[in-house]
Amino acid sequence: MINIFKNVKLAEKIVSHVANRTPLMASRTLDSLVSAKRVIVKCENFQRTGSFKFRGAWNCISHIPTQERKYGIIAHSSGNFAQAVALVAKILHIKATIVMPNNATPSKIAATRGYGAEVVLCGNQPGDRDKISTELIEQYDYKLIHPFDDLNVIFGAGTTAYEFIKNYSSIDLLLLPVGGGGLISGCSIAAKGLDPRIKVIGIEPKNADDTFRSFQLGKRVPVENPNTIADGLRTSVGELTFPIIQEFVDDIITVTEEQIIDAMKFYWERMKLVVEPSGAVPLAGLLFGAIDPSLIKGKKIGLIISGGNIDLTDFFSLLKQKHTKTKVN
Amino acid sequence: MINIFKNVKLAEKIVSHVANRTPLMASRTLDSLVSAKRVIVKCENFQRTGSFKFRGAWNCISHIPTQERKYGIIAHSSGNFAQAVALVAKILHIKATIVMPNNATPSKIAATRGYGAEVVLCGNQPGDRDKISTELIEQYDYKLIHPFDDLNVIFGAGTTAYEFIKNYSSIDLLLLPVGGGGLISGCSIAAKGLDPRIKVIGIEPKNADDTFRSFQLGKRVPVENPNTIADGLRTSVGELTFPIIQEFVDDIITVTEEQIIDAMKFYWERMKLVVEPSGAVPLAGLLFGAIDPSLIKGKKIGLIISGGNIDLTDFFSLLKQKHTKTKVN
Repeated sequence: MINIFKNVKLAEKIVSHVANRTPLMASRTLDSLVSAKRVIVKCENFQRTGSFKFRGAWNCISHIPTQERKYGIIAHSSGNFAQAVALVAKILHIKATIVMPNNATPSKIAATRGYGAEVVLCGNQPGDRDKISTELIEQYDYKLIHPFDDLNVIFGAGTTAYEFIKNYSSIDLLLLPVGGGGLISGCSIAAKGLDPRIKVIGIEPKNADDTFRSFQLGKRVPVENPNTIADGLRTSVGELTFPIIQEFVDDIITVTEEQIIDAMKFYWERMKLVVEPSGAVPLAGLLFGAIDPSLIKGKKIGLIISGGNIDLTDFFSLLKQKHTKTKVN
Repeated sequence: MINIFKNVKLAEKIVSHVANRTPLMASRTLDSLVSAKRVIVKCENFQRTGSFKFRGAWNCISHIPTQERKYGIIAHSSGNFAQAVALVAKILHIKATIVMPNNATPSKIAATRGYGAEVVLCGNQPGDRDKISTELIEQYDYKLIHPFDDLNVIFGAGTTAYEFIKNYSSIDLLLLPVGGGGLISGCSIAAKGLDPRIKVIGIEPKNADDTFRSFQLGKRVPVENPNTIADGLRTSVGELTFPIIQEFVDDIITVTEEQIIDAMKFYWERMKLVVEPSGAVPLAGLLFGAIDPSLIKGKKIGLIISGGNIDLTDFFSLLKQKHTKTKVN
């Protein structure tokens, strides 16, 4: 344990040079709504590329020896990790290829290309991404970057909680979203390493509850039909991340789609923060989930907003149609 | 001038006890988009009640002698000022009555009531609000609070720029929205008082360009059919605010409805900030307005986001219909 925590501290030194030190926000309305002493929100939606993924990508890629970087790196992702790898590669002058499914959001494909990465589109069936990536690696000798099942990615993600708790000590409870498990495994190492009294609870969409079930059973079971609006949390928990979660996370609970949307609405309307569905999952857990009230009442609670990347093209097109006479495509 | 600036400094002492010290944000994308050295955004959307209006309301109402408070205060507003007066009155234990037009956004009426104010609905024709307010004042001896044509409201609003420039000195250009003129008159006093070299430019919707025209003509002309999405900027410039603008503001320019929406979109998508249309007007000016490029290129530019109060009920109802099977009203 002590050894693993050292790695997060080291990652913090590496990541803090280049990542944004994202702000902490609070809302009096939220405090009184849940009867907490204070709810403090760490805003990784203000991180570079709009999500915490930049931290893990930076920590991982900057550790790759020069020799292994020379043919370029490759990653597959439909969203936030794609943008993070693309920007890190741009800063470090490494060629990056990102395999994205052909149904990925056009704005995310455009953003990834905007950072200078080559985007290779693939089908959207299970296995399609792996197949294309493997072919490209065989052909070009690219170095594969995994979005969460990589210790340097995990330690990098953990700098989110490390920075949070260094900046605002004495929180009692930390709530995090769970997808592949990179964020929560890194952050639980950081939280328990800095203060073992902090309780760490992971929140998962009920419609993609593989980590919840795995945690109950004590062994990894894959996600089935992850039909959730929280697009960042549709993956199954990882081989590396799951044992860390088993060791350092106190509980996993689930929330419904409606609860996720209500939590997003709270962030947008009351706190003026654009938060993507995955990023609102911890607040959904706090507001509506099965958390023991004694962990909340009168306590200091930390929430992590994992990201804010959501496509608003339709919303703004409608607004223009309503408020201007010019035609909008 | 020196005397007026003293009042903003005094207001800052009074307001800073109770207002949020709102954060400054920046975006590398924005810097390079306009070729500025740095664009810094002061986020009054994170202010209490969601807009800068809290500052002026607090500075004004806390100056009212106890004797004049005892029957209560009254204000008329369709939006942000209503909520600000309601919260200030709640904190100071003063009875507040807010006259709001019957077509005001239901969420704004609910928020105003939520802070404990009594809301009296009136018609939405010119003169309706004044008529009802005058009747209520005659009947109950309420003290009227004007949303901008009041020196204490102006000085309170000016604390926005005072706090900004104290926190981040050496800006070259400050861009502000113009409606009744309370924010820009207070902020231009603060900016020129702290550093006379700072250029101050006001941005107004083309569809509500009375201040632009007044500034050109050298005399106040009223707004005509202010058909703009920027609901906070539909009022005519005030009797008190206009001469201050003439003295301390360097220029007034206008932007179209489409430009305002594009600026909002930038804030939401790229900076993850929920900004209301009025609050995005200065960015529209920076991105698309007729500002001399020599004032922008390589310079440090300050933008003030006046507020973030926008009704998202429809957006989230649609999201729920799309992503959950339960019925939503």
